[in-house]
Amino acid sequence: MITHLNNETICAIATAPGLAAIAVVRISGPQAFQIVSNSFKAYRKYTSFEEIPVQKVVLGTFENHGQPVDEVMITKFQKPYSYTGENLVEISCHGSPFIQQQILQILIEHGARVARPGEFTLNAFLNGRIDLSQAEAVADLIASNSTLSQQIAYNQMRGHFSERIKVLRQQLITFSGLIELELDFSEEDLEFASRNDLSTLLDAIDAEIATLKQSFSMGNVLKNGIPVVIIGKPNVGKSTLLNLLVKEERAIVSDIPGTTRDAIEDTMTIDGVAFRFIDTAGLRDSFDVIESIGIQRTYQKIKQAAIVLYLFDVSETTFEEITETIREFKEKFQDDNQHIILVANKLDLIEEIPNYFPDLVEMETVFVSAKRNQNIHLITDSLMKFVAMQSQEENQTIVTSARHYEALLRTSDALQDIRNGIEQKLSGDLLAFHLRDALFHLGSITGEVTNNEVLEEIFSKFCIGK
Amino acid sequence: MITHLNNETICAIATAPGLAAIAVVRISGPQAFQIVSNSFKAYRKYTSFEEIPVQKVVLGTFENHGQPVDEVMITKFQKPYSYTGENLVEISCHGSPFIQQQILQILIEHGARVARPGEFTLNAFLNGRIDLSQAEAVADLIASNSTLSQQIAYNQMRGHFSERIKVLRQQLITFSGLIELELDFSEEDLEFASRNDLSTLLDAIDAEIATLKQSFSMGNVLKNGIPVVIIGKPNVGKSTLLNLLVKEERAIVSDIPGTTRDAIEDTMTIDGVAFRFIDTAGLRDSFDVIESIGIQRTYQKIKQAAIVLYLFDVSETTFEEITETIREFKEKFQDDNQHIILVANKLDLIEEIPNYFPDLVEMETVFVSAKRNQNIHLITDSLMKFVAMQSQEENQTIVTSARHYEALLRTSDALQDIRNGIEQKLSGDLLAFHLRDALFHLGSITGEVTNNEVLEEIFSKFCIGK
Repeated sequence: MITHLNNETICAIATAPGLAAIAVVRISGPQAFQIVSNSFKAYRKYTSFEEIPVQKVVLGTFENHGQPVDEVMITKFQKPYSYTGENLVEISCHGSPFIQQQILQILIEHGARVARPGEFTLNAFLNGRIDLSQAEAVADLIASNSTLSQQIAYNQMRGHFSERIKVLRQQLITFSGLIELELDFSEEDLEFASRNDLSTLLDAIDAEIATLKQSFSMGNVLKNGIPVVIIGKPNVGKSTLLNLLVKEERAIVSDIPGTTRDAIEDTMTIDGVAFRFIDTAGLRDSFDVIESIGIQRTYQKIKQAAIVLYLFDVSETTFEEITETIREFKEKFQDDNQHIILVANKLDLIEEIPNYFPDLVEMETVFVSAKRNQNIHLITDSLMKFVAMQSQEENQTIVTSARHYEALLRTSDALQDIRNGIEQKLSGDLLAFHLRDALFHLGSITGEVTNNEVLEEIFSKFCIGK
Repeated sequence: MITHLNNETICAIATAPGLAAIAVVRISGPQAFQIVSNSFKAYRKYTSFEEIPVQKVVLGTFENHGQPVDEVMITKFQKPYSYTGENLVEISCHGSPFIQQQILQILIEHGARVARPGEFTLNAFLNGRIDLSQAEAVADLIASNSTLSQQIAYNQMRGHFSERIKVLRQQLITFSGLIELELDFSEEDLEFASRNDLSTLLDAIDAEIATLKQSFSMGNVLKNGIPVVIIGKPNVGKSTLLNLLVKEERAIVSDIPGTTRDAIEDTMTIDGVAFRFIDTAGLRDSFDVIESIGIQRTYQKIKQAAIVLYLFDVSETTFEEITETIREFKEKFQDDNQHIILVANKLDLIEEIPNYFPDLVEMETVFVSAKRNQNIHLITDSLMKFVAMQSQEENQTIVTSARHYEALLRTSDALQDIRNGIEQKLSGDLLAFHLRDALFHLGSITGEVTNNEVLEEIFSKFCIGK
């Protein structure tokens, strides 16, 4: 039964595998102190292991039947003031894989067992130290590869998202309480809960859920990189610009793993935000003939884009051409709400900025010369402005987990059922049924209701030692 | 100038690279506290960073210009009570490579620089926290891959070897003092140091150095695996035995990197001791015809072996054959001092142990059946007995470093020069010259005398973060 603590003491190497200066082995559970006390001898004499102060780093020898294995530093964390909420010891040893394995083996010999992936965090959840969405955020944080994905995970880990869910759930419980009260007195046909008040409350809850649901597309995008599609007629400098944008910043991200590169997409991080640039060189070269594209994948790429960089040759394009193209584009993709940035390229070929450009006020326009690497920072500034705007709009609570999104959708459905029920003047017990459904789905986000399958699914994705 | 502390503050990721539950970033130097205080906000309110107790694990937020980067635990170590002997902070963060890099980058922005390989340990040496041979032992410990190599490194790190070198050096200094005193009064032609006493002291020192020098071959062997050559006539079961020995124990070492396998050699660890088994299947099949081998490499393999397992078919071999073979072998390799273990195989084919075997008393003999996997543990017991014996003989100070060995050789040479000088009744100032030479080489082991080239050579082999 994964949903209950099994009272076993678990241990694992918590740092990355391989040779290194140091490594950390963690052990957590009711026997943790006793198991470590068998092998650890502090340099400074403590008459017993219990005497070692908590949260204090203590130097000593880790021994195997009296034979020193390594000079280590240990830290005791006393229940409930530990990551897992149980007695926990961190053993910081020399980063020899052999020594790490030895220490682990000695702990196991004395009664610990190897932790399953995510089991430390699972115990933290089962002990009520964190809720389920916070636990999931720990894995997201470890997997984060840009400032933004890191910040979203960090906020979720610190409970900002859970807080909003809990408030919603509390409101639903209040609502439910009123309905249930009616059920107790159902024979008397009382209506404790004014149907109008209920509807008003429902509207408020639904609006909040809608905001969270909306944030998912943005959250997903921020987590995986904001898709930016570059379009424009042939020979306006699309590839030059892409190479410039990507190469310029590549050095910064070179030592961060996960920077994927393939033929048509290139992910890069600007000021901590991951962007996925989609080169349309292999696609149609301008969207004034988008009608004839016919390639579904191309069309989808543009539909999925959050930002469109429309590149044109400022020395050859007329005001009419631009406005007509933009109009057509907007017509075609009106439902998708892409943010369009006009990039007037080949600034080096003109003497002054054409006087029609002030008329493009409603569009963001930047003037660059890709060839001369001039003003490219204006594009990145625009990209960052967009991200800042989006993050602000989402009020910093952004849903990134498909599991959470699904739970919100189902909550929404249940709320709709209640709304329908009220309209159809259904009885309290039928409303209560849908309410319990809504509470269930909302509670599944924070883990107030959960089951083994969900927990196994979530924690199997963790790394060992966390 | 590497031989002096440069007063810079250094930082590095101290755990292995890659995604993991946690990672540790270290920063050391005069600015360490100030730099971390810019970014770390403890959850429990301390009015200043200085107020945070030393060696206490404190939870808080690591920030970048007010923006949280991660929830971290930090530990302050105050000069001189730290690994490096300087102010040092350990930052334990979530093991996202992105977050690790970010923390490092923030520390650098605030004035730290990335540490060179081994620079933390170099500083520990320059600050007199450890001597040079202890510093080298840290790298050996991290690279250790068997209990024995780990124990040798551990003992050396804890200063057992340095202690012996220091005692030797002190004796030489006493000796030197007497000679130098003579030089001051050289015009009076006094002889403060009795030449007989000098010779006696020299003998004692030389004997000690000889012991250490001898331990090098053993030390080297223990570090790299004890070479065990298996020889015997065709079809006595050599390959079956090798496979049995290796496969039986392989599971134990499967998760330890560095277990190399190739066609003719197979390294395995038994009870924490690495053995390199050398299969002579491709070599001559018995050593009664060793005369005709002619292959230098084969010959060398046997010469390099510490242990020879001589396998014979107990159901077919006569007492005379064995004694004759052993006699020939000993004659051939008389200078090499191999430990021979007779392995009487095919125990399953005989009814009782032949009555001539008690006559093999001076040889260690074990009776096994490789085919039936019977008594194989008797071989491993014998191997371990040999190792235990050797380790005891060496009195637990074992030279494993070629650098130390070379320094001991040169010290020996200088002592020989002094001895010759005394015999030739050379004047005190000439003896003093050789004495200074001996002191120099002995001092180079512990780093009491050193230079940039030596330090660079030593520390460049360390991993970053140590």
